[in-house]
Amino acid sequence: MDAAALPFEALLAARAEAVEGCLRSLLGPRPRDGEIARPETLFAAMRHGVLNGGKRFRPFLLMESAALFGAGGEAVLRAAAALECVHCYSLIHDDLPAMDDDDLRRGKPTVHRAFDEATAILAGDSLLTLAFDVIASPETELPERTRVELVAALARAAGPGGMAGGQALDLAAEKTRPDEEGIVRLQAMKTGALIRFACEGGAIIGNAAAEDRERLAAFGSAIGLAFQLADDLLDLTATTEAMGKATRKDAAAGKATLAAIHGEDWARRQLGALVAQAEELLEPFGAAAEVLRRAARFVAERGH
Amino acid sequence: MDAAALPFEALLAARAEAVEGCLRSLLGPRPRDGEIARPETLFAAMRHGVLNGGKRFRPFLLMESAALFGAGGEAVLRAAAALECVHCYSLIHDDLPAMDDDDLRRGKPTVHRAFDEATAILAGDSLLTLAFDVIASPETELPERTRVELVAALARAAGPGGMAGGQALDLAAEKTRPDEEGIVRLQAMKTGALIRFACEGGAIIGNAAAEDRERLAAFGSAIGLAFQLADDLLDLTATTEAMGKATRKDAAAGKATLAAIHGEDWARRQLGALVAQAEELLEPFGAAAEVLRRAARFVAERGH
Repeated sequence: MDAAALPFEALLAARAEAVEGCLRSLLGPRPRDGEIARPETLFAAMRHGVLNGGKRFRPFLLMESAALFGAGGEAVLRAAAALECVHCYSLIHDDLPAMDDDDLRRGKPTVHRAFDEATAILAGDSLLTLAFDVIASPETELPERTRVELVAALARAAGPGGMAGGQALDLAAEKTRPDEEGIVRLQAMKTGALIRFACEGGAIIGNAAAEDRERLAAFGSAIGLAFQLADDLLDLTATTEAMGKATRKDAAAGKATLAAIHGEDWARRQLGALVAQAEELLEPFGAAAEVLRRAARFVAERGH
Repeated sequence: MDAAALPFEALLAARAEAVEGCLRSLLGPRPRDGEIARPETLFAAMRHGVLNGGKRFRPFLLMESAALFGAGGEAVLRAAAALECVHCYSLIHDDLPAMDDDDLRRGKPTVHRAFDEATAILAGDSLLTLAFDVIASPETELPERTRVELVAALARAAGPGGMAGGQALDLAAEKTRPDEEGIVRLQAMKTGALIRFACEGGAIIGNAAAEDRERLAAFGSAIGLAFQLADDLLDLTATTEAMGKATRKDAAAGKATLAAIHGEDWARRQLGALVAQAEELLEPFGAAAEVLRRAARFVAERGH
């Protein structure tokens, strides 16, 4: 297909469909080699938390980044699905009563509401563990070196020095009232690290030169920041009616965002600058990186 | 040192001290390369859940199994410490109000009591993720192939087809009332899988032949069963005074154990048979496996 002729949403949806199929198969009822059994309720909860119509944006980034280096096929799809499992685990745990206490996600009951708290905790634990299983397993036909580098990078991004640590800082933010530097760090950890990994992970799979891998990681950081800023802008400007959910939640929780500190105009200019920076990072790849450039613009447009 | 001359507890304590040092260093305040920051409270909670005077029995098994194939040193220690992080994550989550709702562990407040529920959930998530980070990272100086095989085997053992799935089945057991086969499966998942991995993991690190790796895994399964049976026996026979904690908890929760179904005498005979089986599996290794044989007897003696 000529990607350039299609709207970005169509490209995203096509990738999402492939990822969805892979996720369905990974979360199916049949135990894999070395698994003793797959408890029914637990796996139903895992599927509930994963097969929920998500946009699969992180898998998209990983697959497009890998494609930039000529990598594709089943192995890339499995790595992308594993990454989505990590993202969904984080949402399931973030939704828990002890955390953000959310009853709904994408208009459906959250996992602890559809099942119970214990099952939601274990479903999250299980998705996180399964993700490393899938990436490390020889069924994911990548060289051993590639698989182990992916595990290391994903664990570093998702762990206490990344995503999990960012959620801890975010929960404390109401009390600690972080300054601007603190907010930037918190967001780089909570949402930035996994988006950065998605882009870097594609370069790892594609066996990219160190310089190119660093370039993709920096691209991921830039769109991670843009992603967060667009979210903050939405939170700042959207009305409850338009969104169909409670907005100004951040402000209500006493959490400062960069958009709230500096205002809408600054935030829009900043978003533009981040997209420009992201596009510039991809310059050496020429036309081949056009879909990733469109991804950067897509992220920023969420804020409008 | 002449291991044969020392009491088993002294051997266990010596290994535990080395593991403790490694855990302290892995859980210290300084961010590692690629970590954005180490949130103070989160890491305090992780240390609280890990540096609690545990016997480090699983690391011991991994190190002794690796030693059987001539492997030792810092890399093995790091893998052992990572395994302990996975064990401690499971305890932190199992103790949560939504799960077993325990206030004390080893006489100290559980993590969610010493901190709060959200921090305990994130500390568990973080320890699990950090474990894969440590094993996969090149700082753990093992060949790429060894590191990726360890990750795959550990994830399979700890995930929804192993430990996490076993905890889900255990929580449901009060309602589902599993039959004998169901109880055996539940226990093989909940406690057996990680002990089996400890023994198999040493063989993976030692680059053992497939036959020897399978032998160690089977040895791990046998002592995993013995471990659980000894626990059940303790629960069945010990008095509250002697244990310093509530006993007969399983019976009170309506959970059947094999020891309760078949009685004390059967359980003691069965324990003896499991130890004999475990010792027999190690026969080809001769005197070199004596410490592991003593480990099997040590496990069984817990029930007396």
